[in-house]
Amino acid sequence: MLITLLALQAAAQAPAPAPKAPSEIIAAAPAADWIDIAPDDLLVMQLAPGASGKERRVVIQLMPPPFSQSWIANIRTLAKAHWWDGTSINRVQDNYVVQWGDATEKKSLPTGLASTSEKEYQLPAPSETIEARRKGLEAQFQGSVSTKDKAELEKLAKRLWRLRDPYALSVEHFRGWPTAMNQADMWPVHCYGMIGVGRGLSPDAGSGAELYTVIGHAPRHLDRNIAVVGRVVEGIEHLSSLPRGTGALGFYEDPKQRVPIVSIRLASELPEGERPRMQYLSTETASFAAYADARANRKDAFFNIPAGGADICNVPVPIRRKL
Amino acid sequence: MLITLLALQAAAQAPAPAPKAPSEIIAAAPAADWIDIAPDDLLVMQLAPGASGKERRVVIQLMPPPFSQSWIANIRTLAKAHWWDGTSINRVQDNYVVQWGDATEKKSLPTGLASTSEKEYQLPAPSETIEARRKGLEAQFQGSVSTKDKAELEKLAKRLWRLRDPYALSVEHFRGWPTAMNQADMWPVHCYGMIGVGRGLSPDAGSGAELYTVIGHAPRHLDRNIAVVGRVVEGIEHLSSLPRGTGALGFYEDPKQRVPIVSIRLASELPEGERPRMQYLSTETASFAAYADARANRKDAFFNIPAGGADICNVPVPIRRKL
Repeated sequence: MLITLLALQAAAQAPAPAPKAPSEIIAAAPAADWIDIAPDDLLVMQLAPGASGKERRVVIQLMPPPFSQSWIANIRTLAKAHWWDGTSINRVQDNYVVQWGDATEKKSLPTGLASTSEKEYQLPAPSETIEARRKGLEAQFQGSVSTKDKAELEKLAKRLWRLRDPYALSVEHFRGWPTAMNQADMWPVHCYGMIGVGRGLSPDAGSGAELYTVIGHAPRHLDRNIAVVGRVVEGIEHLSSLPRGTGALGFYEDPKQRVPIVSIRLASELPEGERPRMQYLSTETASFAAYADARANRKDAFFNIPAGGADICNVPVPIRRKL
Repeated sequence: MLITLLALQAAAQAPAPAPKAPSEIIAAAPAADWIDIAPDDLLVMQLAPGASGKERRVVIQLMPPPFSQSWIANIRTLAKAHWWDGTSINRVQDNYVVQWGDATEKKSLPTGLASTSEKEYQLPAPSETIEARRKGLEAQFQGSVSTKDKAELEKLAKRLWRLRDPYALSVEHFRGWPTAMNQADMWPVHCYGMIGVGRGLSPDAGSGAELYTVIGHAPRHLDRNIAVVGRVVEGIEHLSSLPRGTGALGFYEDPKQRVPIVSIRLASELPEGERPRMQYLSTETASFAAYADARANRKDAFFNIPAGGADICNVPVPIRRKL
């Protein structure tokens, strides 16, 4: 088994083109590989200015179907009701999360929120991702693949790290998002910058009013235990560099330490000129495949030994302002 | 193969004791499981006070043999020469590193520094860790183990996630540190809070005068490409919450943004009363094994679905002030 694996890796490395850095691959991606993020999928969070008086704006992308849509519907409802205006960031725990919402826990929620269920933390894995894994498993474990095509072999060899995830049978980027899979189900994973929904004990699954973002090493043990609803696509430094809370779980002990949230709005509700215009690199393109492969095998000048693999959270989906 | 793996996992889950949170396991560890960190292995970095006037002290543990000892000898020499006093933190890159040293790049180094070599990024893996992996591989891939002992089988099943690392054939905690291994070599890994040595292009391996710590998701692609020399054991929030630099690679553009380093001292050079007294939980104890297993299988009240595995960087070695 190991010998086959190594042989496949050697095959993959044979016809070495001039090595490109991941950033160069992104820069060279054709315009058609970039997907506009719809204004209804973007949230703009305006924090009160910091000590220096500078503006602090955080832009969040909400996940597309089939992920977490009941919470995301609620988040749109909450944003349209201006529910977060005047709430605050209340918790900053080092190497873990920044959390915001109503510190008083008394503010009433708007009407019309959907009920949510922990059953939605996972969903059936799409047949194409199951198929990609099946082929990879075949290559890795049976020591043979059903194709004799050399290019196909190389492609499979480059995919093998996706079968070496410590939390799941495999991982895949799917429609722009990092996901993990077991035998038949998939779920979005907690990487740096991802947004999740605070909740009480099971069966509570949270409404979407209490949110957090990851500011440390991916807390993947939360996967399938909490709804993941989006990611920060701009301005995460305004959250990740906040002073850490000194209370239990990183909550601010003094209410004065809380960071006021001026507003959270859907971009679709902002005047045209104030909307952030963002794009992500389609994960179903050759550009993304080359980028992921370069992340897993760094060969630019600084690197001596390419890793031969990557943690899915170390292959962040490229995001940019629309040119 | 997969069926065997699942059967092993089921066996491991069968005689369920009352689930304990990782923090409870640490709290219950006997005193003998905690190892004092020698004052010669601790660095105390004093930063200029922040805007609020509060003290900012960061405590760093240097790695023991067999890891990175030529750089660590240099770091002790630099500390004894008070070389870092008056230097600064010059780079803060979000989800990556905080880096410090001589911003002028002109300060001459003390005499007596050892030469360093990139060959030392890796070292031969100890036979006991190779053996642990061999047993795990046997269980995972051959569908049989050489023991019929049920307790031994359960122990192996709990270890299997260590063979599912995307960057290496296996991972192990070894003498208090997270490491990874290929067929015959091992190396320390870049987890959150780990300290590495800045360098130029190969074959330069850095002297140890320019250091960084990880403040984001583990940049494991740096493993085997840079020397890892230690970790922050107290006060990382003074580094991770610094304003991000806006220059290339997160360097501060305005020299006034740099954070002055008042001093860096070995604890052994401080007066007895000023020395931090720290301990780490021995990774070669039943307490640590139970803690790692609980991190990989969270069953405390908040969790619905235990992950069944963990990224080695998500199993940080417990550190405490000596009681």
